[in-house]
Amino acid sequence: MELLRRLCQLHAPSGNEVQMKEFLLRYVQDHQHSWKVQPQIIYGEGFQDCLLLVFGKPRTVIFAHMDSIGFMVRYGKQLVKIGGPQTETGYTLVGEDSQGKIECTLREDEEDGSLTYDFHREIDRGTELVFQCDFRETEETIQSCYLDNRLGVWSALQVAQTLENGVVAFGGWEEVGGGSVRYLAKYIHEQYGITQALVSDITWVTEGVRAGEGVAISLRDSLIPRRSFVRKIIRLAQEANIPHQIEVENAGGSDGKELQHSDIPWDWCFIGAPEDHVHSPNELVHKKDIEAMVDIYKLLMHKL
Amino acid sequence: MELLRRLCQLHAPSGNEVQMKEFLLRYVQDHQHSWKVQPQIIYGEGFQDCLLLVFGKPRTVIFAHMDSIGFMVRYGKQLVKIGGPQTETGYTLVGEDSQGKIECTLREDEEDGSLTYDFHREIDRGTELVFQCDFRETEETIQSCYLDNRLGVWSALQVAQTLENGVVAFGGWEEVGGGSVRYLAKYIHEQYGITQALVSDITWVTEGVRAGEGVAISLRDSLIPRRSFVRKIIRLAQEANIPHQIEVENAGGSDGKELQHSDIPWDWCFIGAPEDHVHSPNELVHKKDIEAMVDIYKLLMHKL
Amino acid sequence: MELLRRLCQLHAPSGNEVQMKEFLLRYVQDHQHSWKVQPQIIYGEGFQDCLLLVFGKPRTVIFAHMDSIGFMVRYGKQLVKIGGPQTETGYTLVGEDSQGKIECTLREDEEDGSLTYDFHREIDRGTELVFQCDFRETEETIQSCYLDNRLGVWSALQVAQTLENGVVAFGGWEEVGGGSVRYLAKYIHEQYGITQALVSDITWVTEGVRAGEGVAISLRDSLIPRRSFVRKIIRLAQEANIPHQIEVENAGGSDGKELQHSDIPWDWCFIGAPEDHVHSPNELVHKKDIEAMVDIYKLLMHKL
Repeated sequence: MELLRRLCQLHAPSGNEVQMKEFLLRYVQDHQHSWKVQPQIIYGEGFQDCLLLVFGKPRTVIFAHMDSIGFMVRYGKQLVKIGGPQTETGYTLVGEDSQGKIECTLREDEEDGSLTYDFHREIDRGTELVFQCDFRETEETIQSCYLDNRLGVWSALQVAQTLENGVVAFGGWEEVGGGSVRYLAKYIHEQYGITQALVSDITWVTEGVRAGEGVAISLRDSLIPRRSFVRKIIRLAQEANIPHQIEVENAGGSDGKELQHSDIPWDWCFIGAPEDHVHSPNELVHKKDIEAMVDIYKLLMHKL
Repeated sequence: MELLRRLCQLHAPSGNEVQMKEFLLRYVQDHQHSWKVQPQIIYGEGFQDCLLLVFGKPRTVIFAHMDSIGFMVRYGKQLVKIGGPQTETGYTLVGEDSQGKIECTLREDEEDGSLTYDFHREIDRGTELVFQCDFRETEETIQSCYLDNRLGVWSALQVAQTLENGVVAFGGWEEVGGGSVRYLAKYIHEQYGITQALVSDITWVTEGVRAGEGVAISLRDSLIPRRSFVRKIIRLAQEANIPHQIEVENAGGSDGKELQHSDIPWDWCFIGAPEDHVHSPNELVHKKDIEAMVDIYKLLMHKL
Repeated sequence: MELLRRLCQLHAPSGNEVQMKEFLLRYVQDHQHSWKVQPQIIYGEGFQDCLLLVFGKPRTVIFAHMDSIGFMVRYGKQLVKIGGPQTETGYTLVGEDSQGKIECTLREDEEDGSLTYDFHREIDRGTELVFQCDFRETEETIQSCYLDNRLGVWSALQVAQTLENGVVAFGGWEEVGGGSVRYLAKYIHEQYGITQALVSDITWVTEGVRAGEGVAISLRDSLIPRRSFVRKIIRLAQEANIPHQIEVENAGGSDGKELQHSDIPWDWCFIGAPEDHVHSPNELVHKKDIEAMVDIYKLLMHKL
């Protein structure tokens, strides 16, 4: 889990995914020689800070978002949210501005909910702050900030090792409503003619989706993907005896939203391990669910 | 109205429009020989569960959504909504799961508004339930669930009988915010170069749009289509003496939203009969308004 | 400021931008002979009521929306909003219907907030009303309705005088969530291969962005553009000593939203003078900020 630990420590709030992109690029360049198939690596002009890995003759694409939630310094000591982080007085936030490294403390006003930081000096306006990473591993669980979605990225990298045909797309801006999947999806569709997509992301432990009971396959969140596609995925998971749980929610969203609302007839499905303490520094995922997540992606990229 | 009755009984909640598509496909194949022009029928790969009928040299497209609102089984006895159905304890819901046909009763908690079903057994997680159809016809009115939008579909089929030039596009996902009009519109625009669209759907009886006083032509809902296009439509309706009412709302949406936000310069207009008891099992439409709806579509597909 | 005064008086609520388009078209045709470069003027079929000016070999596009907020007559004496105007009993609204010119008074119900008009007769359903223009100029400030965004349009016209390479795009529907930038952006990207965009619009005076202290460069509103692009813009402004203020908000939106959610990898940034009394008949902007706005656009169109 050393790779996952390093991913969780990278600074890449929405809109500033460049450190994740560069890390992943180096990682792929360093490790692809041991992979079953060496992918075409696509990045740079026309792709902003995104990264695509294209293996063989793809039929399906995995989307895994690189960006994280966080905070941005507004005026004076004020903070505004990047995406929807949990806020609790005392959380340690880290970042960097023109005067150097920052390690400060989040403070939430009890009355009006306004957010500020405690620090010995004023921080530059517009500076991004993210949760300080405290990576904790037990025999059964992983706990850290940003398992959402460094774990989705990590899982995609495990799948990449043996992937023969498929695309792995690392995008940004997911936590703030999107901005890259639409053009990545267009490129992928136009180049390879494919319309099948899997969203490799982390979901919530709820009364119906429990830690340790398998990877979640989402029949719906605020959006509803085509039922026949999701039913096919569930059938494949059943036949392969991969531990899984069917998720049915009426809120939340993912990169699937950009696919659903695009001008390409995507069949898509959200598949990911559930986590507890969502969007906090203490996101907690069960290792069995991580294992099932990698297994189902390997299966689906082969079978779909 | 036997055709409309059958349409209202089909199971096709958003994301699972396949039964509507198959019914319409058979209907068109069986009846087109008696139509003025035999359309090109487009469906299958690249079109998910949608269906296009292309007549002659099209200048304008009619969009009619096939999907309906409904419910989906969450965890235990819980239900979540598909779209925005009215909820009232006692409504009969129907569906099917791995154990067979289901006819159960909706229950809404008086305190927290949570939704559950009453049934002698637990229903499979993720099962879709829709209103049981009780189709009622009087001399003046039609009443049933799902007149929104089986009536919009039915109207388009009436127009198809004498249509010489135009496209009729049956799409899905309208009740949950869209997902097919964007790619259908792209295909239609790229193939036929057209930018005029009419949204064949059902609207609300309000203090300004009354049952029996004509088809509604919408100047706006939450979105505002190009004024010059809607004014032209109103002028044509006036000249032809087709009973119509101008609708001005600041809420609601339709397939027009996907057109408005697309990267094609669509001129679009929502035109449809108004209904009472919206999104309930008792949607009520006046026959005179249905007649005016068919008439105005015939006119516009000829004149625009 | 005579040009700005005339722009502020034009009737062009969202969806009905035709008067602005025609005014701008005539203005450009009349004045381009004195400009450094004569642009290609693109409008008409396929562009609805929008207008593009293409100078030389463009690398960057300026988007300036032509539409304004306003009101539309609903049923009886009711009004609904077009976009988000400030509402205060006593505001004078103007428009025209089948019976002639209208000058009426806005009335907001103190209890339920509902909007009506006071006028000696009933106004045609669907009639658009806008704020009556009271243009006020002092040595330091300009005050009028619709500085948002006639000032953004005006600024783009100043920049056009010396522009050598670039696109100026006048669009519509911004105040109601968009509808033209998506297709304009597609055309511009496909024709000229560019992915850099500046949003020429007016923002809010806040505790962190003050009147007279420079043009605002927005690091974010409800959306977050790519950080590296905005940082580059800020650096250029610093090097050129153009008075500017960095804006960090967590609400609001602009034409940038349509770019961010498109299927083209746009780098975009909102840059505009801040105003007080937003969306009222009394929008107030400091002349120094207007000057800085024109200066930064000239700089960026040259340097980016």
